[in-house]
Amino acid sequence: MARVVAAFNRVTPTLVDRLRDAVGAERVLIDDESLELHASDETEDLVFRPEVVVVPASADAIARVMRLATEFRVPVTPRGAGTGLSGGALPVHGGIVLSTRDLNRILEVDRENLMAVVEPGVITQVFQETVERAGLFYPVDPASRGSCFLGGNLAECSGGPRAVKYGVTKDFVTGVEAVLPDGTLMHHGGKLLKNVTGYNLTQLIVGSEGTLAIVTKIYFRLLPLPRHRMMLLAPFDSLEDPARAVPAIMHAGIVPSVLEFMERDAVEITERHLGKSFPHAEAAAHLMIELDGNDEGVVQRDAERVAEIVLEHHAKDVLVADTDAKMGELWSMRRAFGAAVKSESVYKEEDTVVPRNQLVALLTGVKQIAARHGLRTVCYGHAGDGNLHVNILKMDMSEERWNTALEPAIREIFELTVGLGGLISGEHGIGYVQKNYMPIAFSAPELALMRAIKRAFDPLGILNPGKMFP
Amino acid sequence: MARVVAAFNRVTPTLVDRLRDAVGAERVLIDDESLELHASDETEDLVFRPEVVVVPASADAIARVMRLATEFRVPVTPRGAGTGLSGGALPVHGGIVLSTRDLNRILEVDRENLMAVVEPGVITQVFQETVERAGLFYPVDPASRGSCFLGGNLAECSGGPRAVKYGVTKDFVTGVEAVLPDGTLMHHGGKLLKNVTGYNLTQLIVGSEGTLAIVTKIYFRLLPLPRHRMMLLAPFDSLEDPARAVPAIMHAGIVPSVLEFMERDAVEITERHLGKSFPHAEAAAHLMIELDGNDEGVVQRDAERVAEIVLEHHAKDVLVADTDAKMGELWSMRRAFGAAVKSESVYKEEDTVVPRNQLVALLTGVKQIAARHGLRTVCYGHAGDGNLHVNILKMDMSEERWNTALEPAIREIFELTVGLGGLISGEHGIGYVQKNYMPIAFSAPELALMRAIKRAFDPLGILNPGKMFP
Repeated sequence: MARVVAAFNRVTPTLVDRLRDAVGAERVLIDDESLELHASDETEDLVFRPEVVVVPASADAIARVMRLATEFRVPVTPRGAGTGLSGGALPVHGGIVLSTRDLNRILEVDRENLMAVVEPGVITQVFQETVERAGLFYPVDPASRGSCFLGGNLAECSGGPRAVKYGVTKDFVTGVEAVLPDGTLMHHGGKLLKNVTGYNLTQLIVGSEGTLAIVTKIYFRLLPLPRHRMMLLAPFDSLEDPARAVPAIMHAGIVPSVLEFMERDAVEITERHLGKSFPHAEAAAHLMIELDGNDEGVVQRDAERVAEIVLEHHAKDVLVADTDAKMGELWSMRRAFGAAVKSESVYKEEDTVVPRNQLVALLTGVKQIAARHGLRTVCYGHAGDGNLHVNILKMDMSEERWNTALEPAIREIFELTVGLGGLISGEHGIGYVQKNYMPIAFSAPELALMRAIKRAFDPLGILNPGKMFP
Repeated sequence: MARVVAAFNRVTPTLVDRLRDAVGAERVLIDDESLELHASDETEDLVFRPEVVVVPASADAIARVMRLATEFRVPVTPRGAGTGLSGGALPVHGGIVLSTRDLNRILEVDRENLMAVVEPGVITQVFQETVERAGLFYPVDPASRGSCFLGGNLAECSGGPRAVKYGVTKDFVTGVEAVLPDGTLMHHGGKLLKNVTGYNLTQLIVGSEGTLAIVTKIYFRLLPLPRHRMMLLAPFDSLEDPARAVPAIMHAGIVPSVLEFMERDAVEITERHLGKSFPHAEAAAHLMIELDGNDEGVVQRDAERVAEIVLEHHAKDVLVADTDAKMGELWSMRRAFGAAVKSESVYKEEDTVVPRNQLVALLTGVKQIAARHGLRTVCYGHAGDGNLHVNILKMDMSEERWNTALEPAIREIFELTVGLGGLISGEHGIGYVQKNYMPIAFSAPELALMRAIKRAFDPLGILNPGKMFP
C-alpha cells in the first residue's frame, strides 16, 4: 500500500505574498521572534522552526490557507496554545504553522440544551468558568487549563483527573465544524445527544492530533454544576496499598470525581518548585480523592465510606478539604507536578494507561525496569482511570548513558503496559515523540488502516506531517 | 473521486463448498427456509433474499468467510438479531448473510474495572440482567432489548430512553475486536477509560452499520447500579406543553434518567394492540419521566421538583410509579409502541433528532407537513434528547396516493429537522431506507469523505453494500 505522500516544497516569497492576500498581511509572521516562538511547545526540549506563521481570524481564512498549502504542497502544522506534551504542534517538516489563537469566542452557552458552542482558541479555564457562572459544568480539566485551548484539548482528546467519573474530551464533543486539508469546510453533528447520521466524523477528528482536519467550531455537551464537592487526601507508606484501594472504592459502588495517585518524589519535587509544603510529604504515596454531587449529605456519606476503605488499605491518615480555599491549594499543588518535574531535570514523560486494577502491576514493573536501566522515575497520575504519568529523569547521568538507557527502557515500559491490557498514551497523544512506539500497540494491518484513513482526509499528506505514524 | 467498487459475483457451488470447509458444513445454510428467514428484518415490509447464510462460531471463522468473500468478490451482509429499523441487515445485493448469533458469550464482567467483555451475539437484556446481578448497570436500553443483540446495538449505535442522562451505545464502548473486509482481525482499545493511542477506530466502527468491519468482541464500560428509581407519568392537553416542560426540567439542574414523550395516538394504538388500558389515555400527550440515584431521599426530592415543573406546564395530573411492578407495566407499554404501530397499518418511521428545545417546533412542523400531504402521523420518542420517532401511517390510503405523497413529505420533514439544527437519524441508522436522504444532511464533499473512509476499510466494497450512501 502506498505511503502518505511526503514530498513537500519550501515556503517561497510568492506563497508568503499569497498568504498575506488570503488572511491579511498583519496575520502572516516571518520575523525571527515569531518563528522562534512557534518552534517549540511544552514537549521536552524539542525545537523545529516553521518557515512562516499564520494567524487566521476565521474559518474561511483557514480554508484559504489550506487551499494555498494544497496548491504549493507545503506542510501545515495547526497550533493551539502550544501546551502539548507529545510534540503535536511542532512543525517537524517546516512549512506553515497555523495558529488558532484568534478564533477565541465562546459563541453560545445554551442552558436549555445543556450545550455550548465555541471556537478552538478559547482557553479551557475561561470556558469552565463561563459555563459555571451559568450553573453548568464542563468537567474535563487538564493540568494546563489556565493556558491550553479547547481546540488543542479536542485534538489530543485531553483527559485530566475527572475522567474516572465524567470521561474525557471525546465524551463531551457532540459536533464540529472543521477545515479539511484541501480547504473544504465541513460540519458534523451539533447540539445533539444522539446522532447516527453517517460515520461519526466528530469522534474520528477528536484525538486525531490535528492530522485530519483543523477544527474551527466545537459543540460541547455540558452537565448541571454539582452543588457540593469535597476532597480527601490519604498518605500511605507503600506504593501498592493506595493502588489497591482504588478498585476497592469502585467496588463499593462509589465513583469519585477524582482519584489521583502521586508518589513521594512527585510531591517533594513540587514542594521544592513551589516553595510550599504538603501535609505528610514523607509518605511513600498519596491518594487525592474528590467526591461531588448535588446533595451535601450524600457527598459526606460517600466521603466517610471512602475514608474507611482507604484506612482499611493502611492509609496513615485521611485529611479532609471541604472549603474552596483548601481544595484550591491541593489542586494548585497537583497541577504544578508537570512544571516541577520539568524544572528538576531533563526528563522524558510517558503517558501509560492500563485497566485501573493493573496499576499495582504497572507501578511495580516500571520501578523494576527503571532500576535495571539505572534510571530514576517519578510517577503520578489518574489512578481512577489507570492513567499513570511515568517521568524518567536524567538528573546527573551522562548524555551518553542517558541516550543509551532511555529508549530500551521506554520500550520495555510500553511492552509491559500493552501486556497488562493497556496502551501507550492515555491523554497526551502520540505526536512526534511516541510515534516510533506505535508498533508496540498496533499490528502492521492496524497501522495501515490508520494510514489509509489519514489518506482519505489528506491525500497529499500536508496536514501535520511527521506525527503519529512511525 | 472513484466510487466504491460494486461489481459483485454470484455465490457459486464452489464458494458454498469453500464456505463449508471454512466454517463447518452445518453452519452454511442454503435451504429455502433459512434464506427466507434471513431475507427481512424489522424494517417495514422489505424482503431481499440472500444466496447463502453462514453462521460462524468464532472470530477466526468470520475471518475465513471474509477472505473467501474477498477472493470471490461476493457481498457479505452481517446480521445480528434482525431487529433493525433501517434495513442494515438486508442483503440488498444478495450474496452472503453472516449471522453472529453463535458468538453469544458474556466473556467477563469485571467489577474492579467496571467493565465487561462480550461477544456480539449476546441479547441486550440478558447482558443488562447479568451485570445487574453483579451490582452494575448498562443503561443503554433499546425497545427491542428482549431480542436484539449487543453487536447490532454497536453497529447502529442504539440509543433508547436513557440517553438523556447516560448516553448511547458509543458512550459505553471502550474497545473492539473486529474482522476487516479482507479477513484481517484487528483490535482497538480495551478496558480503558482513556486512550489516545492512534485514531479512534472504536468510535468509527460504532454506528458504522456493519459497513466497515464485523465486530467479534466488545469492551463495555459499566456503572454502579443506581439503588433507587422512580417514575412519573404526566398527561397533558396539548402537544406543546410537555415539549416545553422538558427544557424547564433540565434548567432546574435535574437530569432525569428517562424523559419520554408520547402523543395520544401512540397510546391508543398500543392499548388496542396489547388489550390493556393506560391511565389518562384521552390526554393529547404524556411525559414519562424516570429519576434514579443512590439516595432515596434525593430521588424523591427531585421527583417532587419535576412534578412541580410539569404542573406549572399544565400537566393534568402526575401519577407516580415507585414499585418495580408499576414501573414494569409502564415500560412494557412504552416498549410495545413500535410493534403496535406496525400492527396498525403499513407505515414508514422516521427517526428525527433535534436539539431538545426544538421539539415543539419539530412536532408542530411535522403535523403541518403531514396535513399538507394528507398523511397521518403518530409521534413518540425520547424528548430528553430531542429524538422523535415520526411514524407515518398509510391506513386506508390508496397505494398510488401513498407512494406519491410519502417521499416529498419525508423530504420536507428531514429538511425541517436539519433546519432546526438536527439530523435525519438519532438511533435507527441510515441503512437502506434513509440513504437517499443523506444529501439533506451532508454536502457532497462530506459524503465523499465518508465514502473515502469506507474505501479505506473496504476497497472492494463487499461489506454490507447498498447501505448508508445514496
